[in-house]
Amino acid sequence: MRNDGRQWNELRPVTITMNPNKHAEGSVLIEFGDTKVLCTATVEERVPPFMKGQGKGWINAEYSMLPRATQVRNQRESARGKLTGRTMEIQRLIGRALRSIVDLQALGERTITLDCDVLQADGGTRTTSITGAYVALALAIHKLNKQHNFTKYPLTDFLASVSVGVIQGNTLLDLNYEEDSKAKVDMNVVMTGGGKFVEVQGTGEESPFSREELDSLLAAAEGGIAQLVAKQKEALGESGLRIGTATV
Amino acid sequence: MRNDGRQWNELRPVTITMNPNKHAEGSVLIEFGDTKVLCTATVEERVPPFMKGQGKGWINAEYSMLPRATQVRNQRESARGKLTGRTMEIQRLIGRALRSIVDLQALGERTITLDCDVLQADGGTRTTSITGAYVALALAIHKLNKQHNFTKYPLTDFLASVSVGVIQGNTLLDLNYEEDSKAKVDMNVVMTGGGKFVEVQGTGEESPFSREELDSLLAAAEGGIAQLVAKQKEALGESGLRIGTATV
Amino acid sequence: MRNDGRQWNELRPVTITMNPNKHAEGSVLIEFGDTKVLCTATVEERVPPFMKGQGKGWINAEYSMLPRATQVRNQRESARGKLTGRTMEIQRLIGRALRSIVDLQALGERTITLDCDVLQADGGTRTTSITGAYVALALAIHKLNKQHNFTKYPLTDFLASVSVGVIQGNTLLDLNYEEDSKAKVDMNVVMTGGGKFVEVQGTGEESPFSREELDSLLAAAEGGIAQLVAKQKEALGESGLRIGTATV
Amino acid sequence: MRNDGRQWNELRPVTITMNPNKHAEGSVLIEFGDTKVLCTATVEERVPPFMKGQGKGWINAEYSMLPRATQVRNQRESARGKLTGRTMEIQRLIGRALRSIVDLQALGERTITLDCDVLQADGGTRTTSITGAYVALALAIHKLNKQHNFTKYPLTDFLASVSVGVIQGNTLLDLNYEEDSKAKVDMNVVMTGGGKFVEVQGTGEESPFSREELDSLLAAAEGGIAQLVAKQKEALGESGLRIGTATV
Amino acid sequence: MRNDGRQWNELRPVTITMNPNKHAEGSVLIEFGDTKVLCTATVEERVPPFMKGQGKGWINAEYSMLPRATQVRNQRESARGKLTGRTMEIQRLIGRALRSIVDLQALGERTITLDCDVLQADGGTRTTSITGAYVALALAIHKLNKQHNFTKYPLTDFLASVSVGVIQGNTLLDLNYEEDSKAKVDMNVVMTGGGKFVEVQGTGEESPFSREELDSLLAAAEGGIAQLVAKQKEALGESGLRIGTATV
Amino acid sequence: MRNDGRQWNELRPVTITMNPNKHAEGSVLIEFGDTKVLCTATVEERVPPFMKGQGKGWINAEYSMLPRATQVRNQRESARGKLTGRTMEIQRLIGRALRSIVDLQALGERTITLDCDVLQADGGTRTTSITGAYVALALAIHKLNKQHNFTKYPLTDFLASVSVGVIQGNTLLDLNYEEDSKAKVDMNVVMTGGGKFVEVQGTGEESPFSREELDSLLAAAEGGIAQLVAKQKEALGESGLRIGTATV
Repeated sequence: MRNDGRQWNELRPVTITMNPNKHAEGSVLIEFGDTKVLCTATVEERVPPFMKGQGKGWINAEYSMLPRATQVRNQRESARGKLTGRTMEIQRLIGRALRSIVDLQALGERTITLDCDVLQADGGTRTTSITGAYVALALAIHKLNKQHNFTKYPLTDFLASVSVGVIQGNTLLDLNYEEDSKAKVDMNVVMTGGGKFVEVQGTGEESPFSREELDSLLAAAEGGIAQLVAKQKEALGESGLRIGTATV
Repeated sequence: MRNDGRQWNELRPVTITMNPNKHAEGSVLIEFGDTKVLCTATVEERVPPFMKGQGKGWINAEYSMLPRATQVRNQRESARGKLTGRTMEIQRLIGRALRSIVDLQALGERTITLDCDVLQADGGTRTTSITGAYVALALAIHKLNKQHNFTKYPLTDFLASVSVGVIQGNTLLDLNYEEDSKAKVDMNVVMTGGGKFVEVQGTGEESPFSREELDSLLAAAEGGIAQLVAKQKEALGESGLRIGTATV
Repeated sequence: MRNDGRQWNELRPVTITMNPNKHAEGSVLIEFGDTKVLCTATVEERVPPFMKGQGKGWINAEYSMLPRATQVRNQRESARGKLTGRTMEIQRLIGRALRSIVDLQALGERTITLDCDVLQADGGTRTTSITGAYVALALAIHKLNKQHNFTKYPLTDFLASVSVGVIQGNTLLDLNYEEDSKAKVDMNVVMTGGGKFVEVQGTGEESPFSREELDSLLAAAEGGIAQLVAKQKEALGESGLRIGTATV
Repeated sequence: MRNDGRQWNELRPVTITMNPNKHAEGSVLIEFGDTKVLCTATVEERVPPFMKGQGKGWINAEYSMLPRATQVRNQRESARGKLTGRTMEIQRLIGRALRSIVDLQALGERTITLDCDVLQADGGTRTTSITGAYVALALAIHKLNKQHNFTKYPLTDFLASVSVGVIQGNTLLDLNYEEDSKAKVDMNVVMTGGGKFVEVQGTGEESPFSREELDSLLAAAEGGIAQLVAKQKEALGESGLRIGTATV
Repeated sequence: MRNDGRQWNELRPVTITMNPNKHAEGSVLIEFGDTKVLCTATVEERVPPFMKGQGKGWINAEYSMLPRATQVRNQRESARGKLTGRTMEIQRLIGRALRSIVDLQALGERTITLDCDVLQADGGTRTTSITGAYVALALAIHKLNKQHNFTKYPLTDFLASVSVGVIQGNTLLDLNYEEDSKAKVDMNVVMTGGGKFVEVQGTGEESPFSREELDSLLAAAEGGIAQLVAKQKEALGESGLRIGTATV
Repeated sequence: MRNDGRQWNELRPVTITMNPNKHAEGSVLIEFGDTKVLCTATVEERVPPFMKGQGKGWINAEYSMLPRATQVRNQRESARGKLTGRTMEIQRLIGRALRSIVDLQALGERTITLDCDVLQADGGTRTTSITGAYVALALAIHKLNKQHNFTKYPLTDFLASVSVGVIQGNTLLDLNYEEDSKAKVDMNVVMTGGGKFVEVQGTGEESPFSREELDSLLAAAEGGIAQLVAKQKEALGESGLRIGTATV
């Protein structure tokens, strides 16, 4: 039995609130249990210098936690004057994952920036961010399509992410903070709606893991991600169908 | 008639949601119309180096806007590697204002940090922050009092803030973003529940103002602040009464 | 009786030395008692990026204190690698104040930067800086006019600044450092030669103040500023008359 | 056939030069083909602040590339004033991986820092760094043991790392730079001498990958790592045997 | 004939104004022609971390130019967020030079910081700074001696500095800015009152120089420094005699 | 007798390994005894902003030490977020020295950057860097000449550097680390193949030096540099002859 009464392969309650921000081209407030992330999508009609003149677009992500998102207050990175390695690692991951399901050629020379700001943290902030950022991105592309009527729709699939871990020999899905701090093995998986892997990041800093454990973790993640994609489809409704038709 | 249908001396709808954050010692989500600020209070049992050994506490504030809080996305200050002058100015103002209604001696050697994070901006983010941070602070001190039973209650009064400005010769209360960008004179006022001034910051960069205009602005602010303090009392309920008894 | 023998509404001795710097387009060394600030004006035939293509000019200010301008040596901001909030706040104030009496359209697409470097500090460095920077600015515009013969003279009025405060219930004009550190209420006022307010910044961190106190402070400031403007006119002589004719 | 004539499951020539640095407690120059990394181990008799008083040691890693390690010169991170996200990610990975095979309790309150400086890059700099840093670490612990005669030997296993990828549907082992830039799927694997996983980081930014592809990549990595561990044993000789006895 | 009418071996007019700063333990405003530097000495009863517990003192120097000290305005180093290489080089030189004539043991565990702020520049700012900083240092040590009555007087000699250069085959003493920018060879020399070399820094970036030229430059510098030391003695008067007795 | 058995005027063993880096336009690994520096030359077909449009090229140098190049590990400058003054001073010196023997006009609008990375340090890293960087530069220019067939060959002479010092009254050539830390006087000299001085930097922080000592130091340096130039000629072979013909 888990500390919050869940089964080993049970997600925390997932809530997706659509468009909480009036300025952004797309936004969601996503909750995996007590982990709450505000994701906004910003469309800009230009690309970063290294992408100029290729006729292709770009997807960028930034991630941050409010100082009191956590039990103990963290110093702001703006006050420290630089990003931590953890933040850089996470925002690189979010951007890379989202680019895997966007046809940058079809998007054209524009940038969509996904800001993932963690309002409250209880484990799994990067997987919650990816899952929410996908929905904000889908909303922004849906809106862009209304204006530009893309020849080819730039979104190629759904995308969601979940964590899995091993605690006392048991594989668990979607770890909360208390579980995360006890896990000997910790893995984050990102998959498409079509069931392919986009990112597999497993680490056994405290205890190396066997091939059997790896297989069990991947299976648990696969199950969780299928449920998350279903939640995304439900939230996106008609605009979700549009994407579904094109790719799944 | 104002762009959102308000009277010249009418506040925007004010909403105060209590304790939206499960980790903080006190927290509110405060809304002045479409301006939404999450304020959290963090208590730490130590003081900054310059306050050590004086037997007194400290109140500190930090302010930040999410990148897409505004119509056009702003670069994160953490990515720029430094705070803007505007942010520094605002967080110094919030801290100074809150310290004016705290008896630092009575608080004892501890620091309360108020984080004001603007989730959505539509003018008046600093006044909304001060008004919300006061409530988060009151909650944190109320909680501290339950643990420590202060000999002297450290909160000495209510505190709220509002903006006023002059547009086309008319004094207006609580400017939204569109009004703010048109105002020739712009003033932020912070007052106590007892009706005294804590901060008066008026600027006529685009057009110097007369003593008559100044008097009219101060009167409008006074009226607005009285209404905001009433909202705070309503939100704080019993803990608000505690403070009320002591000071008003 | 004040610690330096002045009356409550008496300024410290004011000295303005014209053009101490051979490179700058305008410069003054201004002294309010023992507070000494070197102000230089630099004209550049370009505007900052955010002003480009509007046919308008820009006025910018920078402020700094030499490390041993104060009783205890301060670390250089260049060595710390960033400006303090106090410095940012002051230089934003100086720039904003000076822009209020310049017709940026008439100035044309050029920038005038006012550098205010405090050689020795004894309270009131920001008010001394504004009062001195005005004169350096007037000299630079006068020089520009000789070259370009402006259709409309870009300087619209005189501008000076003074501090006022409350100590033991008494309103005092132009506080020196010792007074400043004892004042319960502290206010900086910037006014034009025509007697209008450009900035009013009052703070009662240590003790909120009443409307009556505010009125008394404003009256004292008004008297001090009139005397400072007279000093500026005397220092500027013929070029001051030029401005005087146009605006007062 | 690969661009350098290797079989799909063939490593590049691996060379390990022992102790090229006369100051370090352990050092190797390791080469995976044209990728050359200088790894030095530094022992310090103290731990970072967050580890103090726990009676445990710490393993830390830093990674950097010389500016002309690559085909096109890169700006130094010291000149930019900050580390890139890529560097942070890699050095966090190296440190985490090495800690997995060190018994920090047995090591005692001391820190071993592994510096991995890439002298020349041709793909796989992070896997080369981990494989070389392990040997430098083993040398440093061997030397420490001579001085302190550890009750429990702190090194618990061998550790090596290799990259695998998918190019045009083929799984390839140990990608060089040209292969790396063409790969649709890219994976770095870190394993112990005992055949367990320490890190699995696979990314399909350009093309999501199936479970079958993942299995094939893992198998290829496993084969490569076994060969690398054999090379490490050969290089370490007697000190390697010491470790071997304890753990394999 | 030189551009300002001087002989080849003639210094510019040298002026030393004593104690222009009321806070510093010693201060001078020194002028070499139009080059004007404010030098202040600050005494602190502690040493930097690397000097702790050795029973010895430390002499430190910082150097900066006001932004409009030069013909074209320079960006402030505080705004750039870091010191330029030129500034670092100069302040290291000043500190090193001054330490050569201080007996750090005799000084005891205290630090004297010399701040050299260039108010106006016309070539030779580093040599002017060293020559002025010496006098500020002598004043501060004289003042310390009054309080502590040193067993051994910590100042061991006079110290001054001058530049020399080669223009069109002619050796010139004490170059002004225009000469400096034309010189093929540029040398700064620091010498003691006793006629020994403390620093010799010659550079022939634009044209390597022969041994004969070097000898001629050194001879010119020697003559100039003797005159500067005479000026210092005159300025220091009685306190200068004190030093003179001890060392010359 | 010196600590490593050398005569007072004897260089340490000098080794120059040609082209150790496959990417750079020119590279050497140079060793002065146990001091080992990797020097790479990078050619870019553009010049820095301040050189644009003059039809001239630029030579730039960067210097760095690996963290464990020294007996005690140094913090990386990239981790500190800024270059030390020492690094800036050295890389400015290297660049200035190399520019003295390059005809920038003849080079045309391109930049050659010399990176000098100290792999192991035992005194004299700056003199070793200059001597090695010269060879890397010569290789790069030789390669450029093959492509462009310069009308005028841009390299005008050989260039090498050596340190000299005074220990216990004796002049010593090419100090190693232990000697360097004991020397009362320390001098670095850069000379051309033609026997002219490019840089003379002598410092007597611990003990001012006489004219006789200076002469003795210069003579020793002259002898050492002649030997280093012979080594460079030997290493460069045919490309060295090319340069020799033009200039010596």
